[in-house]
Amino acid sequence: MSEMDLQKLFKPKSMAIVGISKKNPLSPGRIVLLKNEFEMNVKVYGIYPTGGEIEGIKLYERLDKLPEIPDLLVIAVNANDTIGYIQDCADLGIPSSVIIGGGFAEVGGEGLERQKKLEKIAFDNDIAVLGPNCLGVYAPPLVDTIFLPTERLTKPPKGSVALISQSGGVLVDQFFNKFYERNIGVSTAVSIGNRAVVDESMLLEYFSKVDKDTTNIAFYLEGFKEGKAKKFAQLVKESEDTVIVFYGGKTKEGKVATKSHTASLAGNYEIIYNALRQNFVIQPHSERELLTCLKVYDVLSKRRNPFGKSVVTFGNVVIVSGSGGHGVIASDMLKKYGLNAVQLTDEEKEHLKSLTSLTAREIASFNNPIDLTGSVLDTDIENVVRYLSDIERIECIILLILPYPPNISFQVGRRIANVVLSKRKPVVCFIPYIPKYSLIIESLELANIPVFHSIKETVQAVSALKQRTRIRNVKQGNIYWE
Amino acid sequence: MSEMDLQKLFKPKSMAIVGISKKNPLSPGRIVLLKNEFEMNVKVYGIYPTGGEIEGIKLYERLDKLPEIPDLLVIAVNANDTIGYIQDCADLGIPSSVIIGGGFAEVGGEGLERQKKLEKIAFDNDIAVLGPNCLGVYAPPLVDTIFLPTERLTKPPKGSVALISQSGGVLVDQFFNKFYERNIGVSTAVSIGNRAVVDESMLLEYFSKVDKDTTNIAFYLEGFKEGKAKKFAQLVKESEDTVIVFYGGKTKEGKVATKSHTASLAGNYEIIYNALRQNFVIQPHSERELLTCLKVYDVLSKRRNPFGKSVVTFGNVVIVSGSGGHGVIASDMLKKYGLNAVQLTDEEKEHLKSLTSLTAREIASFNNPIDLTGSVLDTDIENVVRYLSDIERIECIILLILPYPPNISFQVGRRIANVVLSKRKPVVCFIPYIPKYSLIIESLELANIPVFHSIKETVQAVSALKQRTRIRNVKQGNIYWE
Repeated sequence: MSEMDLQKLFKPKSMAIVGISKKNPLSPGRIVLLKNEFEMNVKVYGIYPTGGEIEGIKLYERLDKLPEIPDLLVIAVNANDTIGYIQDCADLGIPSSVIIGGGFAEVGGEGLERQKKLEKIAFDNDIAVLGPNCLGVYAPPLVDTIFLPTERLTKPPKGSVALISQSGGVLVDQFFNKFYERNIGVSTAVSIGNRAVVDESMLLEYFSKVDKDTTNIAFYLEGFKEGKAKKFAQLVKESEDTVIVFYGGKTKEGKVATKSHTASLAGNYEIIYNALRQNFVIQPHSERELLTCLKVYDVLSKRRNPFGKSVVTFGNVVIVSGSGGHGVIASDMLKKYGLNAVQLTDEEKEHLKSLTSLTAREIASFNNPIDLTGSVLDTDIENVVRYLSDIERIECIILLILPYPPNISFQVGRRIANVVLSKRKPVVCFIPYIPKYSLIIESLELANIPVFHSIKETVQAVSALKQRTRIRNVKQGNIYWE
Repeated sequence: MSEMDLQKLFKPKSMAIVGISKKNPLSPGRIVLLKNEFEMNVKVYGIYPTGGEIEGIKLYERLDKLPEIPDLLVIAVNANDTIGYIQDCADLGIPSSVIIGGGFAEVGGEGLERQKKLEKIAFDNDIAVLGPNCLGVYAPPLVDTIFLPTERLTKPPKGSVALISQSGGVLVDQFFNKFYERNIGVSTAVSIGNRAVVDESMLLEYFSKVDKDTTNIAFYLEGFKEGKAKKFAQLVKESEDTVIVFYGGKTKEGKVATKSHTASLAGNYEIIYNALRQNFVIQPHSERELLTCLKVYDVLSKRRNPFGKSVVTFGNVVIVSGSGGHGVIASDMLKKYGLNAVQLTDEEKEHLKSLTSLTAREIASFNNPIDLTGSVLDTDIENVVRYLSDIERIECIILLILPYPPNISFQVGRRIANVVLSKRKPVVCFIPYIPKYSLIIESLELANIPVFHSIKETVQAVSALKQRTRIRNVKQGNIYWE
């Protein structure tokens, strides 16, 4: 059993950086030095062979000249010199390190040998090494080893999701950027690169058992570390957090690509998928589905979420729409996502009709999907959602809001939010993403009612709730069900 | 053979509106009156039983009191009164009409009878009636019968796509809004509602044979009009335009929904799909795929598009990425979209390496996908795209641009555009949609190089090119191929 302390990696009190260029302001080491000194809360030390300073920050000649042993060493030098610095960590007792540079297993040949050396030193000395060939750690407000200038990135808000990616590019682009767009909160983000030492299982264990800020753990993986898939599955079983894995390299073409990217042996995707499914891992089929799941789970992690922590949804839904076509398109997706359209009784339809304004009721349809048409008023949506919330066999309402009709006001979001907060029936909303309607979107988001900007994501959101229900149920010893 | 003149519907010189409310400023008739008077170029006449005026616009007491016979009558009264106005069209010789209101076939019973009456008058008198139960026509700069206030909509730019939708909501939301986001141009948009008279086949014929502004014709359909699927297929065969159909009501759940929406009998989706595929209709599986196809085809319709009108792509691609993970994710999608990763020879890889900057080349991978890594420079992308453009067996380059690395400049888009414009090899780009990078996005878009904001859409774009190639080939009498 390893005695590596991952807390030193993610919550360091102090860090040192080697590989700072005095000439090139865009060199990775220099960017990391400056962004941590100026933007983050960790104590930062720069190392430069001849000392001196950069932008007012004093540089130390060697690691052994620092006033303290840092918790973390960021290494931004070439592959050959990297080994020497890892040896320094061992000699000086530096407990963790991020290795940014490539030139290891991913290039084959010599690189493989180099990586083996690195692994030996790290494991022999319990140094929690992240990388090589990675962006490292983004753990706000403390530390950020991502060598891309902050102003070039869009950063996600603080939240419940620990993000672990085998690709730095996927982390900052497909995750950071899209989390920001969707207002999904991140606790810590980790780019694992070649994961020579710290791997997905160690991270799963840390975020499950140690890190209190995390309740959802999301992975982008191009395959499991050799011999570690079983361990990973076991850890998922024990975890109280929700674990989500999205795979790169599922197809023959993708596998070829992963080889030169992270030297991963992706293995047989279908076998892994099925094994992990039994072991309660949520495995979205697309990136968008991944993001939708995380949006929903992040909302559920909030203390003030309107549905409570224990939302149970087996997928029985009613669709309420302001457009017949939207209702049709949403209905077309139900089966694919394992959802079921609840049949409304004639009595319920009559009730719904009586709750709707005179103009709308004549042309509206009260089957499921309910189509309130372009003659809809705010109060129609409010009354319909309130009535449906009281019907027990409806587990979730898919609400497709089109703010184009002239009678829909800017209060519509607040009105719906009030109903949802009082009824506590899961409601997921579609509202087109148009800046002028952000007041409506924000009314709902502030009440932690998840809003999506495509019909597909809105339907996927209910599927995400259903999948989470299944996993919770099975973990609690209830019978396995689809 | 009908003698209906659809040009009167889409390019009217004058229009009249019945169903204007003096009390309710949000009534459909009044909104249509004002938006055409104040925003469009058509001559507008309002009808009100007691005459008078609204916001300075003179109202006429009856249709027969107008100073001229209008080309178009917009009817925004209840279902019962509608029939009388259609009879007026017949009596006065008004050649076209848009019926906004519902209460016809879609409500069953009496409504069915009403619709039959309407059809008889229209067909007997060759009145081109659009609807009922529709938003009607948006044909800039002349006419706009959409009763939703203009400031509530986002309008697409002018372009090559005729849009025909069986759902008004889908038209203004899923199409207008997303066309605007993606900069896809529209020639005319039509909401057909119950299509009692003017149906999808008549519109296909008009936009193929008469309307010179249209080169792409896109449909959202919940089924073909009874007995009209064959006619539609025949018209597609004869058309020189590209025809794209997206279906609502493909599944059992969706079919239930279409019944109350447009009273369509969706029929067996699989049979229709296969029949039309043979007949050269492009049939995307999702809305996003539909939008991607239209984006590509709209670009190809531009005189100054860099690929020419006759771009031929059988799906042989190279992926160039700034992130290994993005390359893996894109590669995973190739097979699904019928694309093939071109194998690069060792010599080509050596050449590519020699064209890349010293820092990047050591860690970059020159297999397909090419991963230029976070150490990439503008010139690396430029040189790699230029070199690949000269390799004949590469038909299209999928370029995944991540602007986060510090050495990527704001010139990168312009640099790539210059290469593409000189080489004329199809290139489709992914750039994350982040406002601060819009300068890069616009550099490419201004050169008519299509830019997408998800990996999936970028891959779909090449598939759209391939599908168009197949159809062009078969229409030109070449052998059928997959």
